[in-house]
Amino acid sequence: MREINIALIGYNFMGKAHSYALGNVNFFFPNKIRLNKKVIVGRTLNLLKQAAEEYGWLEYSTDWREVILRDDIDVVCIATPTSSHKEIAIEAAKAGKHVLCEKPLGMNAEEARQMWIAVKDVEIVHMVGHNYRRVPAIALAKKLIDEGKLGNIYHFRGCYLQDWLADPRAPMSWRLDKEIAGSGAHGDLNAHLIDLARYLVGEMDQVIGVEKTFVHQRGEGNSQANVTVDDSTAFLAKFANGATGTFEASRMASGRKNHNSLEINGSKGSLFFDFEHMNELGFWSKEDELEVQGFRKIIVTEDTHPYMKAWWPAGHLLGYQNTFVNQYADFIHAIINKTKVEPNFYDGWMCNQVLDSVSTSIDTLTWEKIRGS
Amino acid sequence: MREINIALIGYNFMGKAHSYALGNVNFFFPNKIRLNKKVIVGRTLNLLKQAAEEYGWLEYSTDWREVILRDDIDVVCIATPTSSHKEIAIEAAKAGKHVLCEKPLGMNAEEARQMWIAVKDVEIVHMVGHNYRRVPAIALAKKLIDEGKLGNIYHFRGCYLQDWLADPRAPMSWRLDKEIAGSGAHGDLNAHLIDLARYLVGEMDQVIGVEKTFVHQRGEGNSQANVTVDDSTAFLAKFANGATGTFEASRMASGRKNHNSLEINGSKGSLFFDFEHMNELGFWSKEDELEVQGFRKIIVTEDTHPYMKAWWPAGHLLGYQNTFVNQYADFIHAIINKTKVEPNFYDGWMCNQVLDSVSTSIDTLTWEKIRGS
Amino acid sequence: MREINIALIGYNFMGKAHSYALGNVNFFFPNKIRLNKKVIVGRTLNLLKQAAEEYGWLEYSTDWREVILRDDIDVVCIATPTSSHKEIAIEAAKAGKHVLCEKPLGMNAEEARQMWIAVKDVEIVHMVGHNYRRVPAIALAKKLIDEGKLGNIYHFRGCYLQDWLADPRAPMSWRLDKEIAGSGAHGDLNAHLIDLARYLVGEMDQVIGVEKTFVHQRGEGNSQANVTVDDSTAFLAKFANGATGTFEASRMASGRKNHNSLEINGSKGSLFFDFEHMNELGFWSKEDELEVQGFRKIIVTEDTHPYMKAWWPAGHLLGYQNTFVNQYADFIHAIINKTKVEPNFYDGWMCNQVLDSVSTSIDTLTWEKIRGS
Amino acid sequence: MREINIALIGYNFMGKAHSYALGNVNFFFPNKIRLNKKVIVGRTLNLLKQAAEEYGWLEYSTDWREVILRDDIDVVCIATPTSSHKEIAIEAAKAGKHVLCEKPLGMNAEEARQMWIAVKDVEIVHMVGHNYRRVPAIALAKKLIDEGKLGNIYHFRGCYLQDWLADPRAPMSWRLDKEIAGSGAHGDLNAHLIDLARYLVGEMDQVIGVEKTFVHQRGEGNSQANVTVDDSTAFLAKFANGATGTFEASRMASGRKNHNSLEINGSKGSLFFDFEHMNELGFWSKEDELEVQGFRKIIVTEDTHPYMKAWWPAGHLLGYQNTFVNQYADFIHAIINKTKVEPNFYDGWMCNQVLDSVSTSIDTLTWEKIRGS
Repeated sequence: MREINIALIGYNFMGKAHSYALGNVNFFFPNKIRLNKKVIVGRTLNLLKQAAEEYGWLEYSTDWREVILRDDIDVVCIATPTSSHKEIAIEAAKAGKHVLCEKPLGMNAEEARQMWIAVKDVEIVHMVGHNYRRVPAIALAKKLIDEGKLGNIYHFRGCYLQDWLADPRAPMSWRLDKEIAGSGAHGDLNAHLIDLARYLVGEMDQVIGVEKTFVHQRGEGNSQANVTVDDSTAFLAKFANGATGTFEASRMASGRKNHNSLEINGSKGSLFFDFEHMNELGFWSKEDELEVQGFRKIIVTEDTHPYMKAWWPAGHLLGYQNTFVNQYADFIHAIINKTKVEPNFYDGWMCNQVLDSVSTSIDTLTWEKIRGS
Repeated sequence: MREINIALIGYNFMGKAHSYALGNVNFFFPNKIRLNKKVIVGRTLNLLKQAAEEYGWLEYSTDWREVILRDDIDVVCIATPTSSHKEIAIEAAKAGKHVLCEKPLGMNAEEARQMWIAVKDVEIVHMVGHNYRRVPAIALAKKLIDEGKLGNIYHFRGCYLQDWLADPRAPMSWRLDKEIAGSGAHGDLNAHLIDLARYLVGEMDQVIGVEKTFVHQRGEGNSQANVTVDDSTAFLAKFANGATGTFEASRMASGRKNHNSLEINGSKGSLFFDFEHMNELGFWSKEDELEVQGFRKIIVTEDTHPYMKAWWPAGHLLGYQNTFVNQYADFIHAIINKTKVEPNFYDGWMCNQVLDSVSTSIDTLTWEKIRGS
Repeated sequence: MREINIALIGYNFMGKAHSYALGNVNFFFPNKIRLNKKVIVGRTLNLLKQAAEEYGWLEYSTDWREVILRDDIDVVCIATPTSSHKEIAIEAAKAGKHVLCEKPLGMNAEEARQMWIAVKDVEIVHMVGHNYRRVPAIALAKKLIDEGKLGNIYHFRGCYLQDWLADPRAPMSWRLDKEIAGSGAHGDLNAHLIDLARYLVGEMDQVIGVEKTFVHQRGEGNSQANVTVDDSTAFLAKFANGATGTFEASRMASGRKNHNSLEINGSKGSLFFDFEHMNELGFWSKEDELEVQGFRKIIVTEDTHPYMKAWWPAGHLLGYQNTFVNQYADFIHAIINKTKVEPNFYDGWMCNQVLDSVSTSIDTLTWEKIRGS
Repeated sequence: MREINIALIGYNFMGKAHSYALGNVNFFFPNKIRLNKKVIVGRTLNLLKQAAEEYGWLEYSTDWREVILRDDIDVVCIATPTSSHKEIAIEAAKAGKHVLCEKPLGMNAEEARQMWIAVKDVEIVHMVGHNYRRVPAIALAKKLIDEGKLGNIYHFRGCYLQDWLADPRAPMSWRLDKEIAGSGAHGDLNAHLIDLARYLVGEMDQVIGVEKTFVHQRGEGNSQANVTVDDSTAFLAKFANGATGTFEASRMASGRKNHNSLEINGSKGSLFFDFEHMNELGFWSKEDELEVQGFRKIIVTEDTHPYMKAWWPAGHLLGYQNTFVNQYADFIHAIINKTKVEPNFYDGWMCNQVLDSVSTSIDTLTWEKIRGS
């Protein structure tokens, strides 16, 4: 049986999610391939050892460069803070490894462009970890749009709201340090919305945004640190196909825990999704008889829905972690079959372009054109 | 018993709503005053006569100027298209009549300013028909915010979505003619959101918007006419108190009938309202015990809730029309007690200022400052 | 113009609802008839006078017998406690007056039978005040079922939950006195569910129930009184057409204010209704494409929906009181056109039969057959 | 490191769920124990081999008796149809193995009693697979009730609705054969509701039910088979503590996929749960300030909620499969710490008693007392 050996860089929240998915992808998507969780890589030895043990990695290492060069490593998964994505991904590509990198791909569009350049002519599979594309309800939304069930698209409306910073006393974190995270709610949450908007509606042409940092220092007593990223960023968009869009990301929205929601309106129908009810897709169709038109709540757990044949009988819900399993199923499938997968580094670059244009617009106070490829 | 004689200008959708409310306000808010639906005014005689009969008006007239000058008229209610608001309202004020004018107050801020000038030193009660302030759930929201239950306000997020133009074959209407309506979704729907934002969060400082007309001609066969207003307008706002806002009005949102929704996030709590569930207010409070924190769905029908003592026992829902009754209760109360009421012509002017600044920003492609009074 | 003169017996909650509806039915359903709120009848003079004034009645009287016999009275509306329904209704029928009587029709099936006997051969229109049939969403449900959209009906599931007695300290009321009210939650709330079940699914064949009085005395200090009715009654039903049913009425369901909900499942579809969202009907259809099957939330406010042409544009919600206006529109229509209307006294009798059979089953501890007509 | 070796009997839907959980319990609940998926047991060799491979079992066998007797097996998990539970469980207990058995425990109360007798004096951990107790929202409900947040319990209201048999053309299955399944919707779905009612409210005293088989033959062409179980069973219950209950299980509820829902009303508060939104708990509290009382939607994903420290940050939802992981975490914890766990075979027996009493009541047409232990 063919084996594929994985190296994972990072062992925190995302490292755990990737480890979980790697341990379950074959269970749900059997493919005659043995996936080995070979090496997990991190910097803090005691935590790394514990993660290796709990998450079932055969080895651990503090030297990602060395690991990437190992002949027995086939795949490199990057689940580190954004600031290290570029270097690791480019080295992995040079070493001919398949790469799955967390989002946002780069600290900015220029980094992402270099990453795209590094992979585009190499025979590897590259992917960006926009796991929300792998929610079955989102995959179904894509299918319905492609089938024309919405007609011409008029509006995209996305909100990704969390509240872990709403309390001014919430502690400091690397995610609030621009040097490490690149940006705040914008790069973390709007990146997901932008990817979904590109996936479902298409490319944006122009954007203008507003960002806000409500709490400028966090921490306790003497260990106060400056918050150097945005707490929230909202922006307007004009899509290439004529649709208009509103986007908002915030970590200050009290009561909203992981409210990744979107609505798309077209001439013939509308779709609604909210990650807090991730197994459901709202769908309204003008083609229904007039007297029974209404938003349907599709419970996306039927055998015939995307990804669902692999899981449970109808009505047995999926959770957050399942999206990572679905993602790895597609990634591994591409490796085995030597095909491409989306979102890949090109998509990651495009996403970074939008992020950057929004940031620029905040400085210039006017609409910025997305440069495109 | 003291009597108050009303003249109503307009007999269509809004004319019907006002007539209804005038016929019911004393039933629910008894006040020892007899309200007489004295004269209804319009231009098309046969329709006017029918309206007078069905809606219970004692007289009808096609000459609003004459009616306004009648000694036996105490109150003038303006439920006409926006283009005639200014002239009627100013004449009514000159004649010393109390005035309730539909929204938006003026075709633009300059008109509204003149209207405000005309009333501000006259001893009359003036009001703008932003009836959504009279939804008990909205009045409760105001109370909770004033009590500090949300802490510092971070975000306002308003969407007012309808779909009656989503189909490109939907017919032409005066509401799509800039000369009569002033603007499209913007003046019609964003006007309500702006009024609610000012009421609940405070004044805005700067805005930038995007508008779109998706369908440029409507009508059938030879009777095609140009649509000269926006089908949708979205904008970003910076509030004077530091909060950020997103606003979107559209008549192209398939499946959304009268989806007037808003969410406000603060450091200690959040509120959510959707007119499609107009008897409910969503409320999340950080002061709840941690393990039971969650958005409450308050059914705003208790005796202790604003306006509700006048209506039915708890759990017996109000409808759209009740907001007009509540509005007239407040208006008549101000007349009787010689007090002020909000939103008045000053508020209407401020609302028009925001509308105008958004429109300007669409031309200048940059943030526009709200001029203020 | 033809005039119809109304006498209303009762001026409390239901008296207010009827007065409201009588004052508005012609506004929304113009019919070239003048309805006069002629006389309101009650026992407590000062309250009666106040009600007459506030609710706009031309006269008031404390002698219902005298009023019923007046030549200038055409219609008698009975909005009194259940114990007086029979006597008033039978006298009104003898006097040849049209009668609209609140529910439940009689204190028991025998009373209701006598009432039915009294009206069935007289040329009057008789109706029972099951206003929930006049919710547009319920009328639409009836239409969809009649069109076969649910296929064979398998289940009816009704819950009518309130909470005004959940607190043991809630005060005594005539509604808790068996001599006046007949029964508690059962006759008050199950009566509505039974009427809706008969309307939507058909007659029941057998029932068995459980009732409970959780708090046996209410009141303060020395003025404690015995509660002689049920706080809650639930029952199972076998319908004549083979469907099974579950019913539950309670005034002890903390947090549920007027939660009158029902679900009907059939071989081809399902319907769901909850009065707390009274403008919506849930509908699931097997005839939808497999991948987009889901419960639709139909906002029942389109012109094409039952009753809605009379009201407001789509998306402008109705409230509790509108159901009474719709009810009077149908009642007056039947009077004018000399037709029948449902639910009439026959339906009221059938409803009382089910109520009685449930009560008997609680004593006999076994299934009771509904006797039928 | 200590090792625990597992044998699993059954490889279908439940076998997959158990295999999944066994493969993930240590990942989320690290405990210094190595769990080995040692042997999977089934009857159909080719399917068994495939399951062993896909689900990661080290060995497979068609002889459960032999496997149970192996010295290197510590735990026996029974995921077979109900008819084989008794024999396997008793043999496992005799062999001194810990046992986790799927629900319902026995074909009837007598079988379950024998199983309880077999384990009660043996030093093993025994558990029944009522996985819904391991939904964090349900565990939180238990905690809130135990803390007195609901006051005295008045009502339990449970519905477990599916629709896979609603279409008369749905195929035959072992689940519709009384010899193998014991009963239909009753034993399959009401068993879960009964377990949750016992867990949250307490023991029942009396019950009466109604069952229905709507479609008596299923299958195609010549291979029609008789359906010998109920399609739906509903029952009323009187709880020992005075509360009343309604229960309904159906596989004929079109549009309901796995609608396992319950509501509990008490003198001080209410709880609501629906598995279709399994990460949420509805909670209403009289102790809230009057004007903001309302059902809260608690998103049960905080660190402080039951089981959640093991999973993801707040707002990242769990799915169906996570309940099995939580269940095994508790089961393994009990094995390691030599403690008891619930629901155990005693609970399984009590559940079977209620199931049986309902069935008896359907024959006797009167209330049946639950016998108790």
